[in-house]
Amino acid sequence: MSEVTVVASPGLQTNVVNWLARSWVQRTLLTLILINAVLLGLETSAEIMAVASGPILALDRIILWIFVIEIALRIYAYRLAFFKDAWSLFDFAVVAIALVPASGPFAVLRALRVLRVLRVLTFVPSMKKIVGALVKSLNGMVSIAMVLGLVYYVSAVMATKLFGQAFPEWFGSLGATLYTLFQVMTLESWSMGISRPVMEQFPYAWAFFVPFILIATFTMLNLFIAVIVNAVQSMNEEEHKDEIDAKAQVQQDLLLQMQQLQAELAALRAQLPSHNKE
Amino acid sequence: MSEVTVVASPGLQTNVVNWLARSWVQRTLLTLILINAVLLGLETSAEIMAVASGPILALDRIILWIFVIEIALRIYAYRLAFFKDAWSLFDFAVVAIALVPASGPFAVLRALRVLRVLRVLTFVPSMKKIVGALVKSLNGMVSIAMVLGLVYYVSAVMATKLFGQAFPEWFGSLGATLYTLFQVMTLESWSMGISRPVMEQFPYAWAFFVPFILIATFTMLNLFIAVIVNAVQSMNEEEHKDEIDAKAQVQQDLLLQMQQLQAELAALRAQLPSHNKE
Amino acid sequence: MSEVTVVASPGLQTNVVNWLARSWVQRTLLTLILINAVLLGLETSAEIMAVASGPILALDRIILWIFVIEIALRIYAYRLAFFKDAWSLFDFAVVAIALVPASGPFAVLRALRVLRVLRVLTFVPSMKKIVGALVKSLNGMVSIAMVLGLVYYVSAVMATKLFGQAFPEWFGSLGATLYTLFQVMTLESWSMGISRPVMEQFPYAWAFFVPFILIATFTMLNLFIAVIVNAVQSMNEEEHKDEIDAKAQVQQDLLLQMQQLQAELAALRAQLPSHNKE
Amino acid sequence: MSEVTVVASPGLQTNVVNWLARSWVQRTLLTLILINAVLLGLETSAEIMAVASGPILALDRIILWIFVIEIALRIYAYRLAFFKDAWSLFDFAVVAIALVPASGPFAVLRALRVLRVLRVLTFVPSMKKIVGALVKSLNGMVSIAMVLGLVYYVSAVMATKLFGQAFPEWFGSLGATLYTLFQVMTLESWSMGISRPVMEQFPYAWAFFVPFILIATFTMLNLFIAVIVNAVQSMNEEEHKDEIDAKAQVQQDLLLQMQQLQAELAALRAQLPSHNKE
Repeated sequence: MSEVTVVASPGLQTNVVNWLARSWVQRTLLTLILINAVLLGLETSAEIMAVASGPILALDRIILWIFVIEIALRIYAYRLAFFKDAWSLFDFAVVAIALVPASGPFAVLRALRVLRVLRVLTFVPSMKKIVGALVKSLNGMVSIAMVLGLVYYVSAVMATKLFGQAFPEWFGSLGATLYTLFQVMTLESWSMGISRPVMEQFPYAWAFFVPFILIATFTMLNLFIAVIVNAVQSMNEEEHKDEIDAKAQVQQDLLLQMQQLQAELAALRAQLPSHNKE
Repeated sequence: MSEVTVVASPGLQTNVVNWLARSWVQRTLLTLILINAVLLGLETSAEIMAVASGPILALDRIILWIFVIEIALRIYAYRLAFFKDAWSLFDFAVVAIALVPASGPFAVLRALRVLRVLRVLTFVPSMKKIVGALVKSLNGMVSIAMVLGLVYYVSAVMATKLFGQAFPEWFGSLGATLYTLFQVMTLESWSMGISRPVMEQFPYAWAFFVPFILIATFTMLNLFIAVIVNAVQSMNEEEHKDEIDAKAQVQQDLLLQMQQLQAELAALRAQLPSHNKE
Repeated sequence: MSEVTVVASPGLQTNVVNWLARSWVQRTLLTLILINAVLLGLETSAEIMAVASGPILALDRIILWIFVIEIALRIYAYRLAFFKDAWSLFDFAVVAIALVPASGPFAVLRALRVLRVLRVLTFVPSMKKIVGALVKSLNGMVSIAMVLGLVYYVSAVMATKLFGQAFPEWFGSLGATLYTLFQVMTLESWSMGISRPVMEQFPYAWAFFVPFILIATFTMLNLFIAVIVNAVQSMNEEEHKDEIDAKAQVQQDLLLQMQQLQAELAALRAQLPSHNKE
Repeated sequence: MSEVTVVASPGLQTNVVNWLARSWVQRTLLTLILINAVLLGLETSAEIMAVASGPILALDRIILWIFVIEIALRIYAYRLAFFKDAWSLFDFAVVAIALVPASGPFAVLRALRVLRVLRVLTFVPSMKKIVGALVKSLNGMVSIAMVLGLVYYVSAVMATKLFGQAFPEWFGSLGATLYTLFQVMTLESWSMGISRPVMEQFPYAWAFFVPFILIATFTMLNLFIAVIVNAVQSMNEEEHKDEIDAKAQVQQDLLLQMQQLQAELAALRAQLPSHNKE
C-alpha cells in the first residue's frame, strides 16, 4: 500500500511493517472498506435506517476504529516517512475527517465521511496506477491551464463590470461571474438561459459571449489535445524502445560480422608471403 | 454465423450444420430479419395497423416461428457448443423474449421484441466485426471505469446526505442522486436546472458541483483517450508488422551477402599456398 | 473546375473547353458567385429590399443567367462526361433549382436558391480538396454508422411502443421518436426536458434512456475515433513513404558496397596463382 | 519580452534596451501586472470599493503610468522595429485602451481595461510559447474553417428566408440567424428551445435543423482532428529527427567499416605477387 521503505528499524517496528504488508491484512482492510461503502450507501435510505440504524451505525463505528488503529500502526511503523507519502497523507486525511465531531458549523463534514471509501484507490494496485497516471497527466497541462485561467479571469472581471449592475444574480460579484462563465464554458443554457436575456438589455452582448466561447472551447480543446498527445507519446516511447532494441541487435550483428570479416582478411594477409615489404 | 467447429459429429447433425451454413439459407434469414424490422416499424403506426394489422401480425408470427426453428436446429446441430458462443446466446435470448406471453406485469416485454432486429449484427460480418471491436475496446477501459464508478458512488452518497432533504425529487434517494449526477455528468441543465436552484438554499453547493464536473469530465476524457490510444496502438502494430517484416527481409539480405563474402574469403584462403603453417 | 478530359473533340467543342478553363473565365465566375452570395444576403434584409430591391433582383437574375449559359456551355463541351462528374452534377443541380418557378407548393425552393453559393466549393481548389477529404472520410465510417443506425432504429421502435400513447408529441410516431432520440443523442434537454417528465409516468424510463445514451455516445465516440485513426493513418503513410524511401536508399548503398567488395574479392582470387585446382 | 534585435544603435538607445531586458526590470513589471490584476478584481466588488476606492484607484493609476513609460521607452529603444513585433503591438494596444477617456459612448472601454492583465502572456515565456502554438495551430485550420463558414452563411440565408417572418426574434435578420445557428451548433437548447417551436409552424423544419447539425458538427469534428493530427505530426517529426539521426549514425558506421574493408582488400591485392598482369 505504501512504497516507503524502512531502513534498519528495530524489532517491533519491523514486525508491524511486515504484518501490515501481509496479503491477508491488506485483503481484510479492502473488504472492510467495501463493506463500509455499502453501509454508507444504506445510511442514505430513510426506510432502511428506520429499521436497522442501530447495527449499521455500530458497524460503521467499528470499521472506523479499525481504520484509526491501522493508520496509527502505520505512523508508528513508518514514522516521518508516513507523512512524506502522498497516498498515506490521503488515507490519514479521509480517516481524520470522520473523527471530527460533525455538529454545529461542521455538520457538512458528516457528508465528507464517505470520502473514506476512496481508500479503495490506495488498496487496488490497478486503480492506484490509473489515478497516478491521471494526476501525472495534469503536469503536461499546467502552462495551458494557466493561459485558460488568465483568459477566464480577465473575462470574468470584464463581464462583472459590463453586466454586473443589470444582472446581479449572474454577474453581481466576481465569484458569481466566475461560476456563470464556468456554466457558459460547459455550454449549458449559455444562450437561452444567459446570453439572450442579457442581449435584451445589451444588444451587443453577443460580442462578449461568442468570442469567449470560441476562445475558451478552443483552449480547452488544446488542453485535451495536450493530454492525448502526451498519452500517444509515452505509448510510442515504450513501443519504440522495444523496436529500437531489436534494430540495435540486428545492427550489432552486422557490425560483428564486419569485424569477423576484417579479422579474417588480416589473417589472410598474414598468411601471404610478404614479398614486397613497405 | 457461428464460428464453433463441430468435430466428428454423426450424419444428420453434420448435415444440419452444413445446411445452416449454406449462403442461401443465411441470406434468406437475413432477409427475414430485415422484413421483420420493417414490420415492427409498421406496427408502431396506428393508421397502418387499423388497416392491415391482420397480415402484419401474421407475417410477424410466421417469421418468429422460422427463427424458433432455426435456433432449435442450431441447438440440435451444435449441442453444448451453442451455449458457449456469445453470439448464439444473444440470438437465443432475443428470440426467447418474443415467446414470453407479454401480458400483465410482463407487458413491457412486448416492446423488447424489437431486439430481434439486432440479429442483423450476427448475420452481417462487417457489423459483427465492428461490434466485436467495440466490446473488445471496453476491456482497456475497465480500470478507469472502476475509478469513475467509485468517484461517482462517493459523490452520490455525499450529495444524498447534503441535499437529500431539501430536494427529494433530485437527491432524495441514492438511486435518484445517481440519475441526477449522470445528468450533471452529461452537462444537461446542470447549472440552470439543478445547481442554481440548489445554491439558493446551499450557497456553497457550487463547491460540490464544479469539482464533480471537473473530475468526472476529466476522468471520462481519459476513458476516451484510453480508447483512442488503444485504437492507434493496434493500428500501429499491424502497420509495423508489415514494415518490420520488410526491414527484416533487407537485413536478412545483408547478412546473407556477408556470409557469402566470408565463404569467398575462406575459399580464397584455401586457395593460397599455406607457406607458413601456424 | 472539372477534371474530365475530352479526347479528340472537333474544333468548336475543344475551343469551348479551353475557353472555360482559362483562368480569367474561372476568376470571373468565382467573383460572380461571391457577388451573388452578397446579393442573397442583402435580400434577407427588409430595409435594404425596400430601397434597392430593383437592382438587387435584376443583378441576381443576370448572374443566374450567366450561370445557366456556363452550365449549358459545359454540357455542350463535355457531353455525357459532364453527367459523370459529381461536381458537375452538383453545379447543375444548384443552378437548376433556381430555375424552378418557386410559387405555390414549391415556394420553399426559393430558399434553396442560396445553395448556388456553395459553388464556391467547386471553384476554390483548397476547399474542393477539403470537401473531397470529408466525403472520403465518410467511407471509413459506413460499417459503424450502420451499427449506430440499427441501434437507433431498434430504440425508436421500442420507445414508440413504450411511451407513444402517453407522450404523443415526443414518441407518437416512429418519425417523432426518431427526432426525439436524435435530440437525446445530442444530450440536449434529454433529462429535464424529456426523461424526467416521462419518468413521472414510467418510473423505470431511466432504464431506457441511460443505456441508450451510453450506447449511442460510445458508438458515436468510436465513429469519431475511426475518423481520427484514418486521418493519422493516412498521415503516417505519407510520412513513412518518404522515410522508407530514404532508408531503402541507404540500404541500396550498403548492398552496392557489398557487391563491389565481392567483385574485388573475385578479382583478387583471379590474381592469385591457382596452385590447387578443385 | 521582445525578440527584436537592435543593430548598431547609439549609446543611450542601447542602454535603454539593455536596461529593459534586465531580469529585475522584467520581474518588477510582471509583479506590477499581477498586482494590477488583483486591483482590477477588487474594483468589481462594491463593498471593497466603498471602503478603499481611493488607494485602489490611485495604485491602478500609478501602475498604468509605469506601463505607459515602459511602452514609451520600448518605442524609443526599438523605433520602427517595435511596431513590427506582434507582441509589442499587443502590449501597445492594451495600454492604449486604458488611456482613452472612457465616458459617454466609450464607457464600454472601461471594461476593456482589464485586457492589460493579458500582458502576463508576454512576460511569462512558457505562456507566450503556448499562445504562439495556439495561434500557429489556427493556420492548419484555415481551409476547413472557410468551408464551415460557407456552410454556415448559406444555412443562415436559408433559415432567414424560411423562418424569418414567423420567428423574428431568432431568424429576423441575417445577424440574428447567425447568432441562433451558432447556438444550434453548440447544441444548446437547439431542439426544445428552437427547433420544436419552429416545427409547430413548419412541420418539416427538422429537415433543416438535423442536416445542419450533422454537417456542422461533422465539419467541426474534422476541424478538431486537423488540430490533433497537426499536433501529433509535429511531435512525430521532432521525435523522428532524433531517431533518424541515431540511425544515420549507425549506417555511417557500417559504411565506414565497408570502406576500411575495401582499403584492406586493396592493400592485400597490392601485397600479392602480380603474376598475371591484365
